[in-house]
Amino acid sequence: MSVPTPPPAPAALSGQEIQELDAHWRAANYLAVGQIYLMANPLLREPLRPEHIKPRLLGHWGTSPGLNLLHTHLNRIVKQRDLDAICVWGPGHGGPAVLANSWLEGSYSETYPDVSRDAEGMAKLFRQFSFPGGVPSHVAPETPGSIHEGGELGYALSHAYGAALDNPGLLVACVIGDGEAETGPLAASWHGNKFLDPVHDGAVLPVLHLNGYKIANPTVLARLPEDELDALLRGYGHEPLYVSGQDPLAVHQAMATALDTAVERIAAIQQAAREDGATGRPAWPMIVLRTPKGWTGPAQVDGVPVEGTWRAHQVPLDRVRDNPTHLAQLEAWLRSYRPEELFDTTGRPVPGVLACVPDGTRRLGANPHTNGGLLLRGLPLAPLERHAVPVDKPGATLHEPTRILGDLLEQVMAATAERRDFRLVGPDETASNRLQAVYAAAGKAWQAGTVPTDEHLAHDGRVMEILSEHTCQGWLEGYLLTGRHGLFSCHEAFVHIVDSMVNQHIKWLRTTRQIPWRAPIASLNYLLTSHAWRQDHNGFSHQDPGFVDHVLNKSPEAVRVYFPPDANTLLVTADHVLRSRDYVNVVVAGKQPCFDWLTLDEARVHCARGAGVWEWAGTDDGTREPDVVLACAGDVPTQEVIAAAGLLRRHLPDLALRVVNVVDLARLMPAEEHPHGMPDTEFDALFTRDRPVVFAYHGYPWLIHRLAYRRAVHPQLHVRGYKESGTTTTPFDMVVRNDLDRYRLVMDVIDRTPGLAVRAAAVRQRMADQRARHHDWIREHGTDLPEVADWTWGS
Amino acid sequence: MSVPTPPPAPAALSGQEIQELDAHWRAANYLAVGQIYLMANPLLREPLRPEHIKPRLLGHWGTSPGLNLLHTHLNRIVKQRDLDAICVWGPGHGGPAVLANSWLEGSYSETYPDVSRDAEGMAKLFRQFSFPGGVPSHVAPETPGSIHEGGELGYALSHAYGAALDNPGLLVACVIGDGEAETGPLAASWHGNKFLDPVHDGAVLPVLHLNGYKIANPTVLARLPEDELDALLRGYGHEPLYVSGQDPLAVHQAMATALDTAVERIAAIQQAAREDGATGRPAWPMIVLRTPKGWTGPAQVDGVPVEGTWRAHQVPLDRVRDNPTHLAQLEAWLRSYRPEELFDTTGRPVPGVLACVPDGTRRLGANPHTNGGLLLRGLPLAPLERHAVPVDKPGATLHEPTRILGDLLEQVMAATAERRDFRLVGPDETASNRLQAVYAAAGKAWQAGTVPTDEHLAHDGRVMEILSEHTCQGWLEGYLLTGRHGLFSCHEAFVHIVDSMVNQHIKWLRTTRQIPWRAPIASLNYLLTSHAWRQDHNGFSHQDPGFVDHVLNKSPEAVRVYFPPDANTLLVTADHVLRSRDYVNVVVAGKQPCFDWLTLDEARVHCARGAGVWEWAGTDDGTREPDVVLACAGDVPTQEVIAAAGLLRRHLPDLALRVVNVVDLARLMPAEEHPHGMPDTEFDALFTRDRPVVFAYHGYPWLIHRLAYRRAVHPQLHVRGYKESGTTTTPFDMVVRNDLDRYRLVMDVIDRTPGLAVRAAAVRQRMADQRARHHDWIREHGTDLPEVADWTWGS
Repeated sequence: MSVPTPPPAPAALSGQEIQELDAHWRAANYLAVGQIYLMANPLLREPLRPEHIKPRLLGHWGTSPGLNLLHTHLNRIVKQRDLDAICVWGPGHGGPAVLANSWLEGSYSETYPDVSRDAEGMAKLFRQFSFPGGVPSHVAPETPGSIHEGGELGYALSHAYGAALDNPGLLVACVIGDGEAETGPLAASWHGNKFLDPVHDGAVLPVLHLNGYKIANPTVLARLPEDELDALLRGYGHEPLYVSGQDPLAVHQAMATALDTAVERIAAIQQAAREDGATGRPAWPMIVLRTPKGWTGPAQVDGVPVEGTWRAHQVPLDRVRDNPTHLAQLEAWLRSYRPEELFDTTGRPVPGVLACVPDGTRRLGANPHTNGGLLLRGLPLAPLERHAVPVDKPGATLHEPTRILGDLLEQVMAATAERRDFRLVGPDETASNRLQAVYAAAGKAWQAGTVPTDEHLAHDGRVMEILSEHTCQGWLEGYLLTGRHGLFSCHEAFVHIVDSMVNQHIKWLRTTRQIPWRAPIASLNYLLTSHAWRQDHNGFSHQDPGFVDHVLNKSPEAVRVYFPPDANTLLVTADHVLRSRDYVNVVVAGKQPCFDWLTLDEARVHCARGAGVWEWAGTDDGTREPDVVLACAGDVPTQEVIAAAGLLRRHLPDLALRVVNVVDLARLMPAEEHPHGMPDTEFDALFTRDRPVVFAYHGYPWLIHRLAYRRAVHPQLHVRGYKESGTTTTPFDMVVRNDLDRYRLVMDVIDRTPGLAVRAAAVRQRMADQRARHHDWIREHGTDLPEVADWTWGS
Repeated sequence: MSVPTPPPAPAALSGQEIQELDAHWRAANYLAVGQIYLMANPLLREPLRPEHIKPRLLGHWGTSPGLNLLHTHLNRIVKQRDLDAICVWGPGHGGPAVLANSWLEGSYSETYPDVSRDAEGMAKLFRQFSFPGGVPSHVAPETPGSIHEGGELGYALSHAYGAALDNPGLLVACVIGDGEAETGPLAASWHGNKFLDPVHDGAVLPVLHLNGYKIANPTVLARLPEDELDALLRGYGHEPLYVSGQDPLAVHQAMATALDTAVERIAAIQQAAREDGATGRPAWPMIVLRTPKGWTGPAQVDGVPVEGTWRAHQVPLDRVRDNPTHLAQLEAWLRSYRPEELFDTTGRPVPGVLACVPDGTRRLGANPHTNGGLLLRGLPLAPLERHAVPVDKPGATLHEPTRILGDLLEQVMAATAERRDFRLVGPDETASNRLQAVYAAAGKAWQAGTVPTDEHLAHDGRVMEILSEHTCQGWLEGYLLTGRHGLFSCHEAFVHIVDSMVNQHIKWLRTTRQIPWRAPIASLNYLLTSHAWRQDHNGFSHQDPGFVDHVLNKSPEAVRVYFPPDANTLLVTADHVLRSRDYVNVVVAGKQPCFDWLTLDEARVHCARGAGVWEWAGTDDGTREPDVVLACAGDVPTQEVIAAAGLLRRHLPDLALRVVNVVDLARLMPAEEHPHGMPDTEFDALFTRDRPVVFAYHGYPWLIHRLAYRRAVHPQLHVRGYKESGTTTTPFDMVVRNDLDRYRLVMDVIDRTPGLAVRAAAVRQRMADQRARHHDWIREHGTDLPEVADWTWGS
């Protein structure tokens, strides 16, 4: 992309500006140290004594001075240029720094009035940090201005890109610690710049903070030769600007120059794209900030170097309460910031300290993009009638459910073409998952080169495809957290790649739900497809239905799991989850042709209930308890259960058979354990208290036991599901290998229903014979038995 | 690193050499297409008819010609230079290619004699591919010469580095597809070259195969401008060699030249380090191979371009059975390789085709490093007496269990100093996890720059620390799969980062256990520490005990889970898992001071049983059924259960209380579901059939229900565990927040034991008062109640 000649070098800071920036930085450093150590005497009005020190010294000093430096300088440039900017603080261990800055700028006291911006509030700020009943040690949901839980590392940059998408006026700074930079998810996310549209999206300004060390080791990037690091960052598509040093005043000047240069470069890129029609991919600026770990902290402790080494990572002086030397060192360290110059007699920051701080919602701790629910608008969803498939009778027609969902997503894409607040992400599987109808309304975001045979690539596309589940997840999280909507479509087996990311997101949601000032955000919606039961091109490596188990371990108030059994139920489910807030919704649905069981209206009723009897499939007339219940959750298990019900109706017409389908898995849980859980009376009415229940489940069978073990009928519950048996084979062979097939289910019913063993012995033998026939047939023909392949309900 | 001037450019191939290489490549391509399409007429001795075509067309053509090219040329250089080389085939969808090459070189028929290297065997080779009862479509455990399941993407390069470590004579080629290159784990693993010692380790030769597309999209790396890609790869520390083109004969020459250059460059690097004492980090060569996706396949199908586009990804002609044009195109495609020149009348490859193929174990499909169990030697483990802690009486002394384990690991490191077949990996947490004693015997692997304050960094170190759980896991898997030993120490919460990787490894082990020619390999051992209950510096984001749930979903024959409750049981457990084979062992143990409960001999007995009564803690004299069972698994739950037992003994001395500790979690499972599962008789003897059981468990409580739901006592089973409640707080507050504390457990016993409600009402109130006192105390003092902090057994 040809961009205008870089603007002239920014002017140097005046002496007063440097002094004011340094005062702000010293104040933030003072407050960070205070949070780690002090529970009294916050302004050092008296000599420091052991009883002023917290009994448990917790927190991370090492990264704090660097974060404070960046925050100070972001303040300056935001205020000077009236920027709409937020910052993703990757080194989340720097909680003390971000809290200190929020307190300085006033956003903390506005959010938490009891922590006022004065001596009393400072004392509370210090005491509450990492203290029982206080605030966590990380940048956390409780931290004003944060969209990024600072616990696990790796996701800062993808969160930043997600925040910048479709926010053309926003600048998203993103600090990447050199420890975090070693992680895989972070390493992949550098390529986010190939997906960022300079016209419709905002800008991301990565700041690689090389303080040299992680917990106990040097970092890879900090120890690269300079030319190698420069090549790497240019290879990532960036123009690096370097800020290095340990003389604070020189670093202030260098940092201000780098930020000015970066912001002007970004403006030039955006102007070229937006006004001059430039379409090439620009080299976005980034900053490399090299400062010592634990900068301005104790140079040595007990005779060994600390500042500038990994030893500064957590608490540099760790025996302050009982070691007078440590205590004296701490006092000298705190006084080195000259607090008496920074805070007035009431403990308030003096005007010079606050000279760099912007006003109102321009403050990093008060920007509404970091409390995205404030900006959220409901999606313009059309009536489902537009997309529903006609169903004259159950099990007679076939549709690919995800293809029908693709029509719905196309409508959402089209309806948000102007608003640009909906994105579809996935690891290069949108078409594979049969959602490609969306391309009619929105292309695939792509800023890299193109060739004539490419299809659907577009600078302004809102379908995001990169072969990195981590990056997809990070983008979507950043997008949702800043007040927009989206859906992640993923192969079921490989969504485990983001297990740990979704953990953190659910923890974020669990926490924000309890924070009054956090407005609800759109749910994170997964469509898991290409699931375990249909991996014809792949096999055993692509079979894992355990993501549901994983998310159901997390806080129930934030987790929902759906198994729509056909196209119309998938539509109803999708409509529901796209309207929901503050959940992680997991929707599991196949892409292969699937029988249509329910009309749209029936699907609405069924999904509203979450689980219900399918009277047409059973022989249970509702006037008496059934002899047996055949239950199912998931599209393939539903098909096998319905086929089994057909066999039972034909061969054992007297059997009172009830067929139950479960869409909303949490309905199986006790009402006191999940908001969707059924009361026992409702559960017993559906599944009975004492009849045999043969349950065909999409995933690992023991999950159903885990959910239902407290129910009266549990001793009678027999679950079939995936049990790690499979390879590259036919669809029906997959269910046979896992004992989930119609013949096996009929045999289960016969084996478990009192009185059937003898009466139905011939039927049972017939089923066993069919299974044997299947085994011979597929090895000969490579396809399923004709009576299976051609089966329809009622045939 | 100063390396001698590069050797002169290798000589050009002769015309005959090129023709022979091309013949081998054409043969491999022919065999790849045949596997995807043909179930009869393998040599095209008759015109192709629909009935020769498989009814289900499955597989991936797109990557195959590139893999075949590389395999052909690896054959050449291995044979010419008698190299000890293996290849990690990242694009696992290229199963047809790797199978084709194995069949050509003869290793396939030696491994599977029924698939002979003749027309009959070729027919079987074709038919079995992706066919029921046949072989999977990916490079898989069944594939000779593979150490890498080709299902999920991202791990090829870290596997390759793992294989090269401590194998100084080995060359590990590694093909990275440009799709895989987008993943986070792969992006991080490029930095493996900062950890590879040119003296003691072998070489890794990455081959970045840019065919331009993933499933349905162009790839990021393929669309970078050449200078940007070059910068990126040099930034990763490599010297890239480029091979591009679509004229086969020219590409053969270029590929041979690049491989010659790379191998000579590697030899020069190794010589400089091994003979001349060079210590700088070299720029290792790598190859960038740009060839069209689906090269030599149909250029167009149905009027749209296929070769060289994403449409060549799977099956380019997909209606061959019922579309005569497709059938004719397929026949022309197959005949374009001129099979009649490649195979003799018996179907055997002609000598010219095999001219490049090396002999015996030099063949890529027969190198014993790819069947690592063949090379495995048992670890030299010393008697545990050397490390055991003395225990005069239970609960009187404290040790940090992982620190004691560190002594054991130091011994293993020292004893393998010459053999070099043991490595410890972890994401920068070895010292944090208190295992730092190992540094006395082995340093931390590090080839990047150093500064004077660094400690324990060593070119030849065998402790591997990088802040990437993915890379740690990949390195260790590669190391184990090639016949060595290791242990992965990881913060418990963040091991979920590798959930999907461990899935694939367990699937590999499950499968190899059923393959007679695969020799058992050392188990993959996890030490999960810094666990959910002690995250003082961190908090909610660092709490997740669900990895155990995740692995217990997988094949039970390959999974073991241990919760040693103290230092000596951890030693016994570690000794056991380090001797075991073909498992994934998960050991969960804390690093904080923990009471010593058992002597070494007691620990041996207890661990051998896996679960047992601790008579000294209860009041159950063994002569009658207890009134109640207090059970525990995990170090923190054990401490709380013992403390609760002490309170019960004091306040309710008449209660017959049994205390059960579980080390081996799978013992709770039914014997028919896990090899370690207890028969019901044994379970009932331990836990009773009908007495209340209050079970304090380390992780999510419902896992215990999931394991034990079939037991007679299950209706009486009440489990306490982690339920997503926590933040930065004191250790005891964590257990209180999750209702796992001693006072709550006593209340549970009272509430659930018949007859106690009235008799023990005062005791119950006292417990409730203690909990209330705790709440007030920690908010005031920030530390735990003195009676908790100072508690010892018997105090």
